[in-house]
Amino acid sequence: MSDTVAGPGGAFPTALTDAPPPWAPPAADVASGPIELPVRVRFLECDPQGVLAHPRYLDLFDDTYMRLNTTRLGGFAAMMRGGIETLVVKTEVDFAKSARAEEELVVVLDLERLGRSSVTLRYRALGRDDGELRAQARTTYVCAHVGEGRSVAFPRWMRERYLGLGGPGSAPT
Amino acid sequence: MSDTVAGPGGAFPTALTDAPPPWAPPAADVASGPIELPVRVRFLECDPQGVLAHPRYLDLFDDTYMRLNTTRLGGFAAMMRGGIETLVVKTEVDFAKSARAEEELVVVLDLERLGRSSVTLRYRALGRDDGELRAQARTTYVCAHVGEGRSVAFPRWMRERYLGLGGPGSAPT
Amino acid sequence: MSDTVAGPGGAFPTALTDAPPPWAPPAADVASGPIELPVRVRFLECDPQGVLAHPRYLDLFDDTYMRLNTTRLGGFAAMMRGGIETLVVKTEVDFAKSARAEEELVVVLDLERLGRSSVTLRYRALGRDDGELRAQARTTYVCAHVGEGRSVAFPRWMRERYLGLGGPGSAPT
Amino acid sequence: MSDTVAGPGGAFPTALTDAPPPWAPPAADVASGPIELPVRVRFLECDPQGVLAHPRYLDLFDDTYMRLNTTRLGGFAAMMRGGIETLVVKTEVDFAKSARAEEELVVVLDLERLGRSSVTLRYRALGRDDGELRAQARTTYVCAHVGEGRSVAFPRWMRERYLGLGGPGSAPT
Repeated sequence: MSDTVAGPGGAFPTALTDAPPPWAPPAADVASGPIELPVRVRFLECDPQGVLAHPRYLDLFDDTYMRLNTTRLGGFAAMMRGGIETLVVKTEVDFAKSARAEEELVVVLDLERLGRSSVTLRYRALGRDDGELRAQARTTYVCAHVGEGRSVAFPRWMRERYLGLGGPGSAPT
Repeated sequence: MSDTVAGPGGAFPTALTDAPPPWAPPAADVASGPIELPVRVRFLECDPQGVLAHPRYLDLFDDTYMRLNTTRLGGFAAMMRGGIETLVVKTEVDFAKSARAEEELVVVLDLERLGRSSVTLRYRALGRDDGELRAQARTTYVCAHVGEGRSVAFPRWMRERYLGLGGPGSAPT
Repeated sequence: MSDTVAGPGGAFPTALTDAPPPWAPPAADVASGPIELPVRVRFLECDPQGVLAHPRYLDLFDDTYMRLNTTRLGGFAAMMRGGIETLVVKTEVDFAKSARAEEELVVVLDLERLGRSSVTLRYRALGRDDGELRAQARTTYVCAHVGEGRSVAFPRWMRERYLGLGGPGSAPT
Repeated sequence: MSDTVAGPGGAFPTALTDAPPPWAPPAADVASGPIELPVRVRFLECDPQGVLAHPRYLDLFDDTYMRLNTTRLGGFAAMMRGGIETLVVKTEVDFAKSARAEEELVVVLDLERLGRSSVTLRYRALGRDDGELRAQARTTYVCAHVGEGRSVAFPRWMRERYLGLGGPGSAPT
């Protein structure tokens, strides 16, 4: 079994796990630190109470997740073609303060916890000007072979990139 | 060329055009008259002015379009597998009166105009209780072979089902 | 202070807390048991992976919450005019299985936990035909005086209606 | 009637119509030419066919409209407090080419036609890199006194700012 990594429901060839595949950016081209996405709240994302509708935060967080995939992991489409998909299994969101139409926010994404075949990312929507927290989410994704639906261990190169985000889950333990 | 129907960008085998394919419901099982979809406006579909956000009408109309596909044409997925797709190319929407959260509406879908390879459907969102018009759209779709992007003539069985909707475009001319 | 109920950030007059106000339906007119909302997944609520986009579950759950407000508490607008608003402070969502376009679901809403000035509701999106869980949320709301932003104890009549939902939080302890 | 401008359903005091009110930016601070809003298509704005869902274009266009209000007219909220609101009465949208997740677009907004109490704006969603048209809308808004629902003539200062957008409707006739 020298060429595979055992997983609860399958395995990737070691070649995939040790180094980034050709479709992923090489380590030298990948930034580290959190992903930061500037966002301006759209009028039509706000509800009759005049504030950003609470489910819309998850849309903003998902868009930030796509930034992570695109800039550090080769992109959602390439990952799919490479046989890797990530599935959202859980999210916990705390709503701290309302955001209003045209307010400028920054979504900051870093690492909450890295498991063997799952990763929990932390998203914080902050006021661009006041730095105050609007909402925070901890969202857990599971790594899977495309089309199989079983979890597998994250390849090593992906682990390194999640750890590169910084945050509570990247500290040595 | 007895087995095909010429189209500007291609043709369907006559077998497809003359009679409904196996994946479509037989004529005897298909209702006629307009499609009517009851809708309750969601609070989170309303904007800070407290009314149904104007783009959301197109979401309601599209959902009604899917009802048409599902109940009279075999369903979007079967149509795709059968090689037929329809592409939205134009919509004209008139906004007559606001709708508010939890208001009960009925979307009525019938035929505005049937062309050779395009169809214009009419959507009206009416108050369930007062019957008053909230918004109306005329939306034009083009028939295409899946993946080719060129328009083709609608198969005859599909023409018959559009005509069965009633409306301004189903009158004999 | 015999006419008020002390709260961490304020109080409602006892008249409000003991019995339903005129704008709320009397106890005899209010059903008990969970709220059940049938839902058909819209094509345009699904993402490029073909499944109901995960934030959209929160839209469906919020719509179910509005049903609760409307049918058992007098309605969102009347509550606001009566000085009571509820604020979402936290949600935890578990995603169990994908839902696809036009799939029929039922959202079931009952009580997870009733606190003094907060309530946690449980939402489950189930397949109408297979009964299988698609997603589940536990969402916490805080009771507040309109425009003050401080939490207050729920009036007794509201407590009774939350308890009437059934669920894990309605069992005697 | 020297201090008012007659309108089909009312009038604004001339003071409002001749010069920008205190809450609007002075002419010297207002840019001219079209409004351009860069947009990155969100994954969750795309549908199961993998393309930007057609109603979402209207959300992007509305966000561009808010940019116009904010940067050249004093902002939606100030306009409302100043007694002026604009109501969407009609939109015509042509869909030319699909846009995909994470594609970079630019929405360009200019003037299609300026009437006495209505304005038709033109929105074009173009590929940032290829400049190709994805969708175009012509949307008509009516000027109204807040809360009255009757149309009134646009104040002169607003007319000047619409004309400053350039586009087919700003040419001398």
